[in-house]
Amino acid sequence: MNDMEKFTAEREALNKLVLDYGGLEIKRFFSLDSQVYREGSIPVKYKELMGLVASLVLRCDDCVKYHIGRAFDENVTDSEMEETMAIGLVVGGSITIPHLRRAIKAWDELKQKGNTNE
Amino acid sequence: MNDMEKFTAEREALNKLVLDYGGLEIKRFFSLDSQVYREGSIPVKYKELMGLVASLVLRCDDCVKYHIGRAFDENVTDSEMEETMAIGLVVGGSITIPHLRRAIKAWDELKQKGNTNE
Amino acid sequence: MNDMEKFTAEREALNKLVLDYGGLEIKRFFSLDSQVYREGSIPVKYKELMGLVASLVLRCDDCVKYHIGRAFDENVTDSEMEETMAIGLVVGGSITIPHLRRAIKAWDELKQKGNTNE
Amino acid sequence: MNDMEKFTAEREALNKLVLDYGGLEIKRFFSLDSQVYREGSIPVKYKELMGLVASLVLRCDDCVKYHIGRAFDENVTDSEMEETMAIGLVVGGSITIPHLRRAIKAWDELKQKGNTNE
Amino acid sequence: MNDMEKFTAEREALNKLVLDYGGLEIKRFFSLDSQVYREGSIPVKYKELMGLVASLVLRCDDCVKYHIGRAFDENVTDSEMEETMAIGLVVGGSITIPHLRRAIKAWDELKQKGNTNE
Amino acid sequence: MNDMEKFTAEREALNKLVLDYGGLEIKRFFSLDSQVYREGSIPVKYKELMGLVASLVLRCDDCVKYHIGRAFDENVTDSEMEETMAIGLVVGGSITIPHLRRAIKAWDELKQKGNTNE
Repeated sequence: MNDMEKFTAEREALNKLVLDYGGLEIKRFFSLDSQVYREGSIPVKYKELMGLVASLVLRCDDCVKYHIGRAFDENVTDSEMEETMAIGLVVGGSITIPHLRRAIKAWDELKQKGNTNE
Repeated sequence: MNDMEKFTAEREALNKLVLDYGGLEIKRFFSLDSQVYREGSIPVKYKELMGLVASLVLRCDDCVKYHIGRAFDENVTDSEMEETMAIGLVVGGSITIPHLRRAIKAWDELKQKGNTNE
Repeated sequence: MNDMEKFTAEREALNKLVLDYGGLEIKRFFSLDSQVYREGSIPVKYKELMGLVASLVLRCDDCVKYHIGRAFDENVTDSEMEETMAIGLVVGGSITIPHLRRAIKAWDELKQKGNTNE
Repeated sequence: MNDMEKFTAEREALNKLVLDYGGLEIKRFFSLDSQVYREGSIPVKYKELMGLVASLVLRCDDCVKYHIGRAFDENVTDSEMEETMAIGLVVGGSITIPHLRRAIKAWDELKQKGNTNE
Repeated sequence: MNDMEKFTAEREALNKLVLDYGGLEIKRFFSLDSQVYREGSIPVKYKELMGLVASLVLRCDDCVKYHIGRAFDENVTDSEMEETMAIGLVVGGSITIPHLRRAIKAWDELKQKGNTNE
Repeated sequence: MNDMEKFTAEREALNKLVLDYGGLEIKRFFSLDSQVYREGSIPVKYKELMGLVASLVLRCDDCVKYHIGRAFDENVTDSEMEETMAIGLVVGGSITIPHLRRAIKAWDELKQKGNTNE
C-alpha cells in the first residue's frame, strides 16, 4: 500500500470507531459533512477544490489528502490543482508550505499510479 | 454610503498607505495576491468562491466582504452563494457563524441595491 | 440598550436573515448547534462553560458574548466564571487577552444590572 | 507499550528537556498550566473536559491525548466523553474530524485496557 | 484623542476590570506577559518586534496596536517596521492584509504626531 | 541521519516536487519567502527568530524546525533561543507546549552534534 492507500484504510477504520462511540449529533454532523459537497448549483469538482483550499489554509493534512483523493476522482487536471494550491498558498502564507509539500506529494502519488487525469 | 461602499472606500485609502510604506516584498505580495484570482483553468467565479470559503473558515470579515463583492461582480447566484457558505460553515464550525451572519448581510445589501444576479 | 442588549438584538435580526438565505444544510447546522448544549450526562451549565472556553481560545468575541449571556442565565458564579477564563487564558495565551477583557466587561455588565448570581 | 503509554513516556522525557533549557518564565508558565486545572468552584473533571474541548477546537493531538488521559483518571463516562466531543466537533467544524478520530482511538485504547469507567 | 490614544485609554480601563475579577492565575499570567518582553540576551526592541510579528500572523488587532506603540517607544525606524511587517505578511498570507492595513495606519498615526523616529 | 538531517533531506526532495508542479505564482511566493529573511535594517539573526516565534505561535513543527536550523547557523545562543521560546509560549499559550517540546529537542540535537554556539 502506498501512502494514500494507507491513509484511506486507516481513515475508514477510525470513522467506524467514531460512529460506534458517537451519538446522534456526531452522526448528524458526519451526514451534513457529506451533503455539502453534493452536486448542486456548483459542480462537485469545484466544491471539492473549495474543500481543498479550506483544508490547506487551515493546515489539516488529513483533510487535504482526502480532498486531493476526491479531486482526482473528479478528474481535476494538473493545472486546476496547481491554481487551487496557489490560492491556498497566497491566502494562508508560508506557514502552509509544509502542508503544500505533502499535498503535492499525495497528488503526485495518485498521478504516478498510471491513471493520470491529463 | 452603505456598509459595502464604506468598506471599499476605506480599503482603498488604507491600501494606498500600505503601498506608501511598503517595500518591494510587500508590493510583490500584493501583486501575487491579484494574480492567483485571474482567469485560468479554473474560471474567475470559482476562484473568488474559493477565496470566500478560505476567508470564512479563517474568519476574516474584511476578506469575506471583499470576496462577496467580487462574487457579486462575477454574477454568482443566490444558490451558488448559499452552497459556498454551507461548505464554509461545515468546515469551519459554529465559530464561523458570526462571520456568516455578516457575510449574508453584505450579500443581502448588494442584492437590495436593485441589480440582482438572479 | 447596553452592549449585551444591542448584541442580542442584532444577533437575532441577522440570524433571521441567515435562515432566509440558508438552505437545508445551514438550517440543520443551526439545529445541531443548539442540540449539543442541551442537558445530558453533562449539566447545561458546564456545557455552556465549555462553549465559552472554546470561544475564548478561538478568539471569537460574539461567541464569547453569547456563552457569557447563557452562563449568566444558568446561574454561573463569579468564581466559576473566573476559573473558566483562567483556563482559556492559559490554553490560548496572551493573544486571547483583548477577548478576555471584552468578556469580563460583558460579564460585569450583566452583573451590574442588579440581578447578581452570587 | 500502547500508543497512550508511548505518548506519556515521550512527553515526560521531553518535559524534562524543556525544564533543563527553560528559564524562569517557562517554568512559571508550566506551573500556571497545572494550577488552572486544580479543584476549585468547578470540579476537576469538568476542568479537564474544558481543556479537552479547547484542545480539540485548536486541533492539538498531543493536548487532546493528555486531557483524554486525565479525563479517564477522573472517571469520565463514555457519554460524558461523547457529549464533550460533540461540542468540540460542532464548534470547530469538520476540520476537527481527523483529531476527533484520534481522540476516540485514544479513549478506546484506555477503555480496552480493562479498567473501564462505565 | 486619536485612535491610538483611545485604544490605550480603553485598554487600561479594561485591564483594571480584568485584575478586579481575576484570581491568582490570571494575575500571574499578566505578570509573565510583561516579564518575557524585558531586556535580556535579546534587546527589548527586537522582543517587541517578535511580539508584533506573532500578533500579526495570529491576526489580533489590539495586540498589533499595542506592540506598534511599544515599538515606537523603542525608536524602531520605518524600515525596521516595514521589514517586520513583510515577514508577518509572508508567513501569515493575504488573510493578514486587513490587519496589516490597520497596523500601518496606527504606525502612521504615531509618526504624524510629529515625534518621528527617523 | 538524525531527525534534523532527515527533515532537511525530505524537505529538499519535496521542495523540488513543489517547484516541478508549481506555476509562476508558487515560484514567486517561494522567492518572496527567502527575500524577507535577508539582511536589512534588521539583522538576519533576529529575522530568523521572528520567523521562529511566528512558527511557534502558529504551531507548525516543520517551520519551527527550519527556523531553529537557521538560528543555529546564525550563531544564536542558548539564552537567545530560550527568550524567543518564552515569548512564543506566552503569546501562544499552553497549546504550543507540544511544539515547544519538539523545538527544544531539535535545538538540543543541533547542540549535541558538538559544534555548540555557546
